[in-house]
Amino acid sequence: MLPDDISETVRRALAEDIGPGDLTANLIPADRRVTAEVISRDEAILCGRAWFDEVFRQIDGDIRITWQVRDGDAIRAGQVLCRIQGPARGVLTGERTALNFLQTLSGTATRTHAYVEAVRGTPATILDTRKTLPGLRTAQKYAVKCGGGQNHRMGLFDGILLKENHITALGSIATAVHNAKTRGTANVPVEIEVENLDQVREAVAAGADHLLLDNFDLSDLKTAVAECGGKIKLEASGNITLDNIRAVAETGVDYISIGDLTKNVTATDLSLRITD
Amino acid sequence: MLPDDISETVRRALAEDIGPGDLTANLIPADRRVTAEVISRDEAILCGRAWFDEVFRQIDGDIRITWQVRDGDAIRAGQVLCRIQGPARGVLTGERTALNFLQTLSGTATRTHAYVEAVRGTPATILDTRKTLPGLRTAQKYAVKCGGGQNHRMGLFDGILLKENHITALGSIATAVHNAKTRGTANVPVEIEVENLDQVREAVAAGADHLLLDNFDLSDLKTAVAECGGKIKLEASGNITLDNIRAVAETGVDYISIGDLTKNVTATDLSLRITD
Amino acid sequence: MLPDDISETVRRALAEDIGPGDLTANLIPADRRVTAEVISRDEAILCGRAWFDEVFRQIDGDIRITWQVRDGDAIRAGQVLCRIQGPARGVLTGERTALNFLQTLSGTATRTHAYVEAVRGTPATILDTRKTLPGLRTAQKYAVKCGGGQNHRMGLFDGILLKENHITALGSIATAVHNAKTRGTANVPVEIEVENLDQVREAVAAGADHLLLDNFDLSDLKTAVAECGGKIKLEASGNITLDNIRAVAETGVDYISIGDLTKNVTATDLSLRITD
Amino acid sequence: MLPDDISETVRRALAEDIGPGDLTANLIPADRRVTAEVISRDEAILCGRAWFDEVFRQIDGDIRITWQVRDGDAIRAGQVLCRIQGPARGVLTGERTALNFLQTLSGTATRTHAYVEAVRGTPATILDTRKTLPGLRTAQKYAVKCGGGQNHRMGLFDGILLKENHITALGSIATAVHNAKTRGTANVPVEIEVENLDQVREAVAAGADHLLLDNFDLSDLKTAVAECGGKIKLEASGNITLDNIRAVAETGVDYISIGDLTKNVTATDLSLRITD
Amino acid sequence: MLPDDISETVRRALAEDIGPGDLTANLIPADRRVTAEVISRDEAILCGRAWFDEVFRQIDGDIRITWQVRDGDAIRAGQVLCRIQGPARGVLTGERTALNFLQTLSGTATRTHAYVEAVRGTPATILDTRKTLPGLRTAQKYAVKCGGGQNHRMGLFDGILLKENHITALGSIATAVHNAKTRGTANVPVEIEVENLDQVREAVAAGADHLLLDNFDLSDLKTAVAECGGKIKLEASGNITLDNIRAVAETGVDYISIGDLTKNVTATDLSLRITD
Amino acid sequence: MLPDDISETVRRALAEDIGPGDLTANLIPADRRVTAEVISRDEAILCGRAWFDEVFRQIDGDIRITWQVRDGDAIRAGQVLCRIQGPARGVLTGERTALNFLQTLSGTATRTHAYVEAVRGTPATILDTRKTLPGLRTAQKYAVKCGGGQNHRMGLFDGILLKENHITALGSIATAVHNAKTRGTANVPVEIEVENLDQVREAVAAGADHLLLDNFDLSDLKTAVAECGGKIKLEASGNITLDNIRAVAETGVDYISIGDLTKNVTATDLSLRITD
Repeated sequence: MLPDDISETVRRALAEDIGPGDLTANLIPADRRVTAEVISRDEAILCGRAWFDEVFRQIDGDIRITWQVRDGDAIRAGQVLCRIQGPARGVLTGERTALNFLQTLSGTATRTHAYVEAVRGTPATILDTRKTLPGLRTAQKYAVKCGGGQNHRMGLFDGILLKENHITALGSIATAVHNAKTRGTANVPVEIEVENLDQVREAVAAGADHLLLDNFDLSDLKTAVAECGGKIKLEASGNITLDNIRAVAETGVDYISIGDLTKNVTATDLSLRITD
Repeated sequence: MLPDDISETVRRALAEDIGPGDLTANLIPADRRVTAEVISRDEAILCGRAWFDEVFRQIDGDIRITWQVRDGDAIRAGQVLCRIQGPARGVLTGERTALNFLQTLSGTATRTHAYVEAVRGTPATILDTRKTLPGLRTAQKYAVKCGGGQNHRMGLFDGILLKENHITALGSIATAVHNAKTRGTANVPVEIEVENLDQVREAVAAGADHLLLDNFDLSDLKTAVAECGGKIKLEASGNITLDNIRAVAETGVDYISIGDLTKNVTATDLSLRITD
Repeated sequence: MLPDDISETVRRALAEDIGPGDLTANLIPADRRVTAEVISRDEAILCGRAWFDEVFRQIDGDIRITWQVRDGDAIRAGQVLCRIQGPARGVLTGERTALNFLQTLSGTATRTHAYVEAVRGTPATILDTRKTLPGLRTAQKYAVKCGGGQNHRMGLFDGILLKENHITALGSIATAVHNAKTRGTANVPVEIEVENLDQVREAVAAGADHLLLDNFDLSDLKTAVAECGGKIKLEASGNITLDNIRAVAETGVDYISIGDLTKNVTATDLSLRITD
Repeated sequence: MLPDDISETVRRALAEDIGPGDLTANLIPADRRVTAEVISRDEAILCGRAWFDEVFRQIDGDIRITWQVRDGDAIRAGQVLCRIQGPARGVLTGERTALNFLQTLSGTATRTHAYVEAVRGTPATILDTRKTLPGLRTAQKYAVKCGGGQNHRMGLFDGILLKENHITALGSIATAVHNAKTRGTANVPVEIEVENLDQVREAVAAGADHLLLDNFDLSDLKTAVAECGGKIKLEASGNITLDNIRAVAETGVDYISIGDLTKNVTATDLSLRITD
Repeated sequence: MLPDDISETVRRALAEDIGPGDLTANLIPADRRVTAEVISRDEAILCGRAWFDEVFRQIDGDIRITWQVRDGDAIRAGQVLCRIQGPARGVLTGERTALNFLQTLSGTATRTHAYVEAVRGTPATILDTRKTLPGLRTAQKYAVKCGGGQNHRMGLFDGILLKENHITALGSIATAVHNAKTRGTANVPVEIEVENLDQVREAVAAGADHLLLDNFDLSDLKTAVAECGGKIKLEASGNITLDNIRAVAETGVDYISIGDLTKNVTATDLSLRITD
Repeated sequence: MLPDDISETVRRALAEDIGPGDLTANLIPADRRVTAEVISRDEAILCGRAWFDEVFRQIDGDIRITWQVRDGDAIRAGQVLCRIQGPARGVLTGERTALNFLQTLSGTATRTHAYVEAVRGTPATILDTRKTLPGLRTAQKYAVKCGGGQNHRMGLFDGILLKENHITALGSIATAVHNAKTRGTANVPVEIEVENLDQVREAVAAGADHLLLDNFDLSDLKTAVAECGGKIKLEASGNITLDNIRAVAETGVDYISIGDLTKNVTATDLSLRITD
């Protein structure tokens, strides 16, 4: 991950919170120093240390943070995550923005982790999607990895995925795959969304490298795996929940991609408290 | 709301999704035109038209969008929200980013609306907090208004709120309020967080304009309203849920502020489909 | 004040002065070091150290500045304000931009200070307005505080002020105040501009929190103070000069707001001289 | 002048004034339209139409402005400068920022014009300096031209001017001029600051193209003109006021450069009034 | 290709050329209009229309360009490429920057085309590399396509290529391929650089998807093709020139990647002439 | 040269190469450290150290670079230019972008140097033009100086050059020069392009300071030098090559300007190799 992306994302978040100045923190004497700690109120998977650190680095280079956990660690309610020392003004000015990053990204890592645990022991790998919070794509993709998932493509630029609308615009699965294989960037596998077993066969015949099996029932997933597992990557998607994901994984698909990982957020409950 | 903020937020979201180019849409002939429609799969409160429109405006000035609903409208599952006409490439390149804005902001408006409905008929007004998704503060604050809530301060720059950590750093409630009243910007009311009825009295005596009653039980809320309702603004906060909010509202507090409005997200389920 | 705002303002000022490079300073050997001092040619109130320092920090991290005065201090003609040590090229490249900030902001602080002195001993507080130099709002607001004034709102986002044009657009004082009290952001006091005593009474009846008394004569100011002083904030404005301000202040108004503080500039005369 | 520079300067000025939104204008119904006019309260030279127009263009493309005067025109007190038609919200949101540009730049044009008038009929041309308001260099240089002056260099990048500190750092006038003539960019004339007639002769001997005669008395100015007028450009500078400038101009110098043009500001008094 | 990228690249190029203003074009009356044409002095493959158009769009919306050729077309010496109509100032201000884009990108397209022609009839596809002109990556990648080549990865983010230094850092080819296959982004093929036939076999055994055969002689290339052609993508690289490329292509490799396409530039000779 | 320009140019180059992250370098353990060296494969003039250093500074502050040569030095094939120590990931992520700057700018310095050598001993100075790679103007102008050339104007803002199209638009050489001398910025010499000896005389009569002799044959160049050498600057341009430049220089012209210096690039062949 580029430091630059983190730095810019943090800069924007601070700008929207601080604007022309912090009216409250400025009431505190400039030379007052404090020690504070961040405590988790939830059980979760931690994610977001680099963003948290960058918030305080941009506010005041004199603030020191000592972490007791790392990104990807399981944390428990009541656990102290880090200690912060520095000028009171800077610590309080940065508090909310720093926690907003940590609570949002830990929320995504924690949600991912639940799905990863649900398929443990099966061959399926959990993937994210492009259904993300605008402006936080890179950060959320990183949180998915902290939660044990893998990343699908970052965006439109690093993978071809022919979805139903593309096929409509191009006329047929065969044309869509043919265009994708013969034009454009070398070395990019061609993934295509299919709706039923007939389309699976049409896409395989056309030379697709990877199929997105959209809303298949378990029986059709098994047939698809039986027919083309091993020869081509199979990815189940659509209406996957924590309740039904294990059954989907046990059909033998290679990947399960889940919009819920990144489009929904349950923020981890964290608080920062001055101790001294 | 400044068009400029929308435009910049959209620009960043497109940059993270499109990067150096859309490998898939570029397979479609440049002169292929389509008509598409956006359909809701959920019951929700719509929010985010301006961001959705701006996505397509930045991609291709030739795309036309005809809306059938407005921000703040209740929408039902299966309802067509808008029609889109234009070059197929541009429509498909913008699809995901446009929907990401609409699903996130409608999610916030919908969540807010549920709380607003829950207190209907009581004197309480629903307020948001600064617990927002980094980079989306302005957009989420707008979504809260679409859902029927009111905005608390936008950030640290347009209101004084002395929280527990500030009081610790300043020494006492009396000092904190005194500093806030005698320094800084003219005309900004002084809000202070209090933990119990003794602190309520101390803050009132010190001249606070507005109290944040943190985690008060119903009985203490009623006492606070009885003692100082009408003379000073009272805002309940902490552990408010859809289950208990009506009881809180019926104590007579002026405001109830709720982090859940903006820190948690349940994206509204939307889809874009080419019809022609 | 956010370091970020200072840094960006300085960056733009350096860009407009240096552009692709300093043709003159580059004639000096790169390893030539100098000591210089900044001397005031005027009596003034100093303001702008952070901008001055930032100019040199951006040009060359190797330049050291040792200040002998602080922002807000009264300085006299001939006084040495600071000493600068470092590479000759960097010192001379930054000289003009650094002095431009210091002379402009000290000019604003000095002008403010004259008004503050003129009302010393009366209850009136000197406020600035939004009549500022484009791009220097935050810096000038800070200079006003260095001169002993207080800040009115920073911009359109952190206060409601219904001026004559707003009342025209909304239909009446009553409607204007009513809309302001029942919509929008919680906790923002409603200020309204009034032209005569009838409008004072109408605004008070409508529930305004703060009145801007525009171009009132002394007699009407006194009547307004007598009728509603203490219950509502009163602010005199319009045609205030150093000659008449004391009489205005003695009417008992809470605030006097003055466009002259920030829209007109008499730059403090400063010079930078190499001493070694 | 590049539209881009105007657009960026306006964008920053709007950002500092509007921030996350205009709390007051948003109280007006979105479909309320108004006609307004800008009236001058002062006699002045107008400058700043492009910035004024750009403010409203960025806020709402639906606002129309009809000018009755042009940049550089003399305007009188009471004169209507332009009419504005469009949505009330946009007109009122942009009012202050648009007027701030117009009043500041007209102030600079007007001040310049006074000096230009004072030397009318003499051979002297009025020049500005680099003593400008940070961030407004390009705009103020344009205002100087509207007032009838000419521009000295825009910044450090488009002209060589060896001042006293450069000479100190380089050792002597001869070395300074020699370095400037033999290094760096082709085709840039070499200007050097001199303090007395001996230095005039030293600089001429060294091959300078242009002399800045700093704080010379009238007699020495005449001697300098007599000795080297016509062969080399002569520019008087230092302690020039409207009272003494004509005498300086009559010595026969080519240029008179005046910091006062751009470092001091007397804003032209303008008001915007809704007429319908 | 994103309009946004073109727009930003053009904005920067104009900024560096125009800076605070065009001293020469401003001498022409503002209402003088011209017709001009761009003529090629060389035989070439055209590339860069969108950048050329954007230059004039940013300078003056009133300039109209009528093209007679398209990107990718072969053009001959003396051919008129387009006609331009509009204000003389804008046309002359944009001339150089617009031509700089067109001459640079046409140079890249032309160079690529020579290699593509040299391998016509063989199975080899010409690829570019990441050896590009800083800041022009996206534009040059587009020029390669106009010249008939295909793009290798855009950057470090959309493909894995384990080069000699990565293998050194990771310890062995087997470890490098293993890490690449089991970590990171789903669906990205693993390419690895090999130096000899032993490494070819080691990489194939480790599961690589694509080999970069660095500096292989023709005999070794043929052996590599014989052993693993069809099963794995083979790409020749290193010291490829127009003289030896056909022999390389005839060995049967899938790709030949050539730094020369984008790191060296022979600008196409173009001129813009006012005709009316 | 402003650090700021280097920093921004590098930032853009890194952004286009790294985008959301380096898929390959991230496979290496984060704590793996390496030593590497950059070796030249060509004989060349080095240029670009500051850009190279800035690439690594932006990626990882922990990378140390020890140079053994300076900008402007002649380097030979096989020579080690610098050693790099630091985390393997950062070194490999920055490698290509850092080398792209160094190979492009050294290419420009080397090409310039060949022309400078070709005219050694004549009075002619080698100048560059505005035919540069978009976005790299400042960097290439610096490279020309490292190669021993001088810079013509940086852009349209710091010099007047009336070319054939300007003369067409203004009507005549006399009008063009007259406008240039009487309007605009003080102190900028007026250069004009002429096509034959008649125009030379017309331009001199009109008061031009500097002539661009476009495509003159040697005999006409000599006549121009004989008629006006010493009184006015003479610059030869058009179809200058390494083969004919010495003859041009021996005619006695002051300057020879050459588009080839900056519009064509032969990248210096460099490689970075991990040694430890």
